[in-house]
Amino acid sequence: MALNVAQKLMKDHLVSGKMEAGEEIGLKIDQTLTQDATGTLVMLELEAMGIDRVKTEASAQYVDHNLIQVDHKNPDDHLFLESATRRFGVHFSKPGNGVSHPVHMQRIGKPGKTMVGSDSHTCAAGSIGMLAMGAGGMEVALAMAGQPFYVKMPKIWGVKLTGELPDWVSAKDVILEMLRRHGVKGGVGKIIEFYGPGVSQLGTMDRHVIANMGAELGATTTVFPSDEEVRKFLEMEERGEDWVELKADKDASYDLEEEINLSTLEPLIAKPSSPGNVVPVREVAGEPIYQAYIGSSANPGYRDVAIVAEILKGKKVSNSVSLDINPASRQLLSDMTKSGLLFELIQAGGRLHQAGCNGCIGMGQAPATGRNSLRTTPRNFPGRSGTKEDSVFLCSPETAAASALTGKITDPRDLDMDYPKVELPDKPTINNELLEEPLPLEEARKTELVKGPNISKIPEFEALPDEMELPVLFKVGDDISTDEILAGGGRVLPYRSNLEEISKFTFEILDGTYYERAMETRDAGGHVIIGGSNYGQGSSREHAALAPRYLGLRFVIVKDYARIHWQNLVNFGVLPLEFVHNEDYDMLEHGDVLRVKNLHQTLPATNALEVEVKGKGPIEAKHSLSSRQIDVMLHGGLINWVKQGEAKNS
Amino acid sequence: MALNVAQKLMKDHLVSGKMEAGEEIGLKIDQTLTQDATGTLVMLELEAMGIDRVKTEASAQYVDHNLIQVDHKNPDDHLFLESATRRFGVHFSKPGNGVSHPVHMQRIGKPGKTMVGSDSHTCAAGSIGMLAMGAGGMEVALAMAGQPFYVKMPKIWGVKLTGELPDWVSAKDVILEMLRRHGVKGGVGKIIEFYGPGVSQLGTMDRHVIANMGAELGATTTVFPSDEEVRKFLEMEERGEDWVELKADKDASYDLEEEINLSTLEPLIAKPSSPGNVVPVREVAGEPIYQAYIGSSANPGYRDVAIVAEILKGKKVSNSVSLDINPASRQLLSDMTKSGLLFELIQAGGRLHQAGCNGCIGMGQAPATGRNSLRTTPRNFPGRSGTKEDSVFLCSPETAAASALTGKITDPRDLDMDYPKVELPDKPTINNELLEEPLPLEEARKTELVKGPNISKIPEFEALPDEMELPVLFKVGDDISTDEILAGGGRVLPYRSNLEEISKFTFEILDGTYYERAMETRDAGGHVIIGGSNYGQGSSREHAALAPRYLGLRFVIVKDYARIHWQNLVNFGVLPLEFVHNEDYDMLEHGDVLRVKNLHQTLPATNALEVEVKGKGPIEAKHSLSSRQIDVMLHGGLINWVKQGEAKNS
Repeated sequence: MALNVAQKLMKDHLVSGKMEAGEEIGLKIDQTLTQDATGTLVMLELEAMGIDRVKTEASAQYVDHNLIQVDHKNPDDHLFLESATRRFGVHFSKPGNGVSHPVHMQRIGKPGKTMVGSDSHTCAAGSIGMLAMGAGGMEVALAMAGQPFYVKMPKIWGVKLTGELPDWVSAKDVILEMLRRHGVKGGVGKIIEFYGPGVSQLGTMDRHVIANMGAELGATTTVFPSDEEVRKFLEMEERGEDWVELKADKDASYDLEEEINLSTLEPLIAKPSSPGNVVPVREVAGEPIYQAYIGSSANPGYRDVAIVAEILKGKKVSNSVSLDINPASRQLLSDMTKSGLLFELIQAGGRLHQAGCNGCIGMGQAPATGRNSLRTTPRNFPGRSGTKEDSVFLCSPETAAASALTGKITDPRDLDMDYPKVELPDKPTINNELLEEPLPLEEARKTELVKGPNISKIPEFEALPDEMELPVLFKVGDDISTDEILAGGGRVLPYRSNLEEISKFTFEILDGTYYERAMETRDAGGHVIIGGSNYGQGSSREHAALAPRYLGLRFVIVKDYARIHWQNLVNFGVLPLEFVHNEDYDMLEHGDVLRVKNLHQTLPATNALEVEVKGKGPIEAKHSLSSRQIDVMLHGGLINWVKQGEAKNS
Repeated sequence: MALNVAQKLMKDHLVSGKMEAGEEIGLKIDQTLTQDATGTLVMLELEAMGIDRVKTEASAQYVDHNLIQVDHKNPDDHLFLESATRRFGVHFSKPGNGVSHPVHMQRIGKPGKTMVGSDSHTCAAGSIGMLAMGAGGMEVALAMAGQPFYVKMPKIWGVKLTGELPDWVSAKDVILEMLRRHGVKGGVGKIIEFYGPGVSQLGTMDRHVIANMGAELGATTTVFPSDEEVRKFLEMEERGEDWVELKADKDASYDLEEEINLSTLEPLIAKPSSPGNVVPVREVAGEPIYQAYIGSSANPGYRDVAIVAEILKGKKVSNSVSLDINPASRQLLSDMTKSGLLFELIQAGGRLHQAGCNGCIGMGQAPATGRNSLRTTPRNFPGRSGTKEDSVFLCSPETAAASALTGKITDPRDLDMDYPKVELPDKPTINNELLEEPLPLEEARKTELVKGPNISKIPEFEALPDEMELPVLFKVGDDISTDEILAGGGRVLPYRSNLEEISKFTFEILDGTYYERAMETRDAGGHVIIGGSNYGQGSSREHAALAPRYLGLRFVIVKDYARIHWQNLVNFGVLPLEFVHNEDYDMLEHGDVLRVKNLHQTLPATNALEVEVKGKGPIEAKHSLSSRQIDVMLHGGLINWVKQGEAKNS
């Protein structure tokens, strides 16, 4: 049977399930990627599972998010991550080396391989023919431990690229066109596969731009073929031997079909405050801007910066504009320096920042109140820039440069100049000085984890008791997000490695007394939470399951769950139940005492469960755990399950 | 009479008093410098005083401290400062343009001129023959308004430089030698003037290194002659026309004499946690280091970075070391980029940060817990790096580079290499793109101040009442610092432009109830504070006087004051009294009601004052205000005094 690229990648790595859309499949994982904001917990999980050494072909830990060191917490986390990578046999990319996505693609990623990463833009590696998916930290930890990654078989969405990009239109406009057509949920349950004659015109870094922001469509991932362009790219990176060809078979078909004629595209822009809010630049032209922001993993290539330098060369950006330059990698910074581009950008009035994620994730470069910021970053969710009620637009480097010159949103075609031609460097600056190779096993085993005062262990959790009689401590309504369960942001995130401290923020937005009340139940067996519909929506943050578990949460009964939080509850041993009769939700209240029994026998046997409400009689509940998940639950969560050798390298 | 350089500068600018050590003199001020951490209050003061336009020859506002934009507060302050500089006729150096001290010297400073600046390292401009002094913001605001600057005539301390610097020893070692000999109080009440044959061997930026850190000796300022070297420097900066010769007369003498034979110097290092804790590098060689930090205004020159690049060229810094590169100015960053130095530094493993103060004032680059950081910055006070109980060493670029290579503190003479020769660029990159000239008067008058939601006005304060009967709200002990009155740091400083908000932190460290209790007195006439000896020591932060005044503080009775806080109290209309009999301190307590009367007649007539303690009888108090200060007090502070035209352009 003729296969497309996505199918080939999955078929090559299939360890369980059937490749039929909607079926759960298990995939062997070759590589993993973690970044520092999520990676400290992953490393603590590996420690808690007693992992001796990762079993992937390559796992890499990047320090790119929390680069602002205003006290000991971030640098302590960096040292912890370094020691953990040494202990577990992981590559370590130091602070200053750049954003995980381009660096991984340049130094470690390989066509034909699978990857999971604890970052939603992990999918960027689809640019070199990898099947690369973002996931929760615990799932990445398991993949590092050699476990398969489970996912519902997505539909494959073939996007045929035809025609040629006009002058002043670049890769960013291609993905903005996808977002214009389909919005931020258009890719849910799908893998986007680009093919067709237009693909060969896109450089590997252009493909990165497109694959990266596939995340903004909600897609499971994005794949490009591994073709001559990828071969050239890897040869330039002195890794020609890592190239394999990977193309769709001639007669391959797709579950869904789409075509983009590149020739018809024009400069596009996503208005505040959603990447799906896309219009032609000309529709908003003339709006004054305060900031033009170049770089990030959504425009990480030399071309992306070079085109800006060529446009600005010998000119000066508008006096009202802050031109912020955020090189995505140290390699890019080196090449920009060498070629003189950096000099041109500084001369034009650019403000150079360190290589890393920076303002893209709200770590610096926040705009002033009420001012428009134009960015080449992937996301403009409200407040993500750090400034509340911000006004962030997403666009191509060309549009950002043109607007920086004029001081207002400007279609680059309206500049009075020819489209500059960009010369790529003959040879990029290969530099592995800040990228540590995994230690040999013997040396790794001698490595002690370095934990600053803000870094704690993940505590041990007991196996699921056969019977629990626990009070309802908190009853919440519909659509409770993980942000309400455990907030993100600069106030809370510095405690990402300190469960005791971060747990103090649990449910704080909804009820400031939860933490103390929960602590009282902790040693008395724990407590229950009652919720409505879509419980745990939003961010995949696994602290939102781990912290309540730490405070004694043992089971939850709700009307229904958001998928990732439901998985995270299972992973940390919290039993996720659902009402059979939603009217029972109304009957239950704070202080009710609930009893479940015979769990060890009942759970594997049936998905139905009786919950006795003291003084009110029994209610019917159900679960939708797979047999693997039931096994995990009975052990008290994934860490115990792995430690006790139940995991199968099937 | 033969004069030295310092005397010439003062004589040329003397508007009142006698140039005899200890006498108060008034000096005409030609230039001012403000930075963003202190400048917002200065601009609010100009607004409150109703100033139309600054009267100095040149005033410049720099944005170099609060460059980390994690929310709207810092960027809003930047925009406010930009609008205020446009309104008042001030140069504006935008974020990214660099640290005030080197930029001012390169673009605006002039030999033979006086300057006050709201930054303690303002004295760095002494490197080009200026008399440049750090001061409180209100005093800088007054200088901008055309008022003289008052200071006690310091002793002039002549330091004769002879001999030649050996290889591997540079300007930083000269000032470390001064600190080794005299400690951090050795310069109090003195101007340090360098002269002698050794001076001509020091480039202007080397002199900057030395003059800058004169602040660490507590000196009023440091001066160098304006000689051929300064002429060449200004010509390179395309400002040859600003040069004037300024040298000590042949037979000039000094109040104090010192000699440093440069030939005898060796690499020195200040150990944690004081710049006065100086020993030879070899005494601490071998200590492992975590960070080597290059740059800052205490090593801002091209040479200072070039020597590091030459030492590291083709090598790699130790894997355990973070090499943080903090270019002091955009000019330096441009020149480093152009010459290829930056490329070499990145290749060696350097982590490049934006141009500005950065980690030197705890804005990023904080070291990890318990790790040694080697820095070329001027200060290593405990916790200044952002990390509590930090371990920061101060040294030359040579020592920092050598130690970065080996991973431990290393005397650069112990490297197995010849001392590299540094080539200065033929022509520095002159770039004024981020430096705005003052607007013409008509345009300036049309400029509105741009105030984000976190920026408030300075409230109007009433004139001193003739009689006050007020409760003692708070009684404190000896050595209360301005940090205890109103803390600095990242938690409090973002509110530096918002008096209502920052005042909530007043005395918070000592008594969390002060703010609320004080607010209750505010509309009822106010309150009194009783203190011991050395009240208001430490930082010159004027918020420590303004915030309590805003909360209703009207007079203070203490045993004695630290000088700057005493001045700040007067400037904001708080009457600073002292006990005549210190035992009265013991008798007073919280809740006592104190009454002073006939102030309008008594204050100008005598320095004695009777304070009636309700139910306890009268006690004797005194003040030591000059007649100018009494006038200021009667008006309710400097702002009122200036507004009501009492200031004299004498």
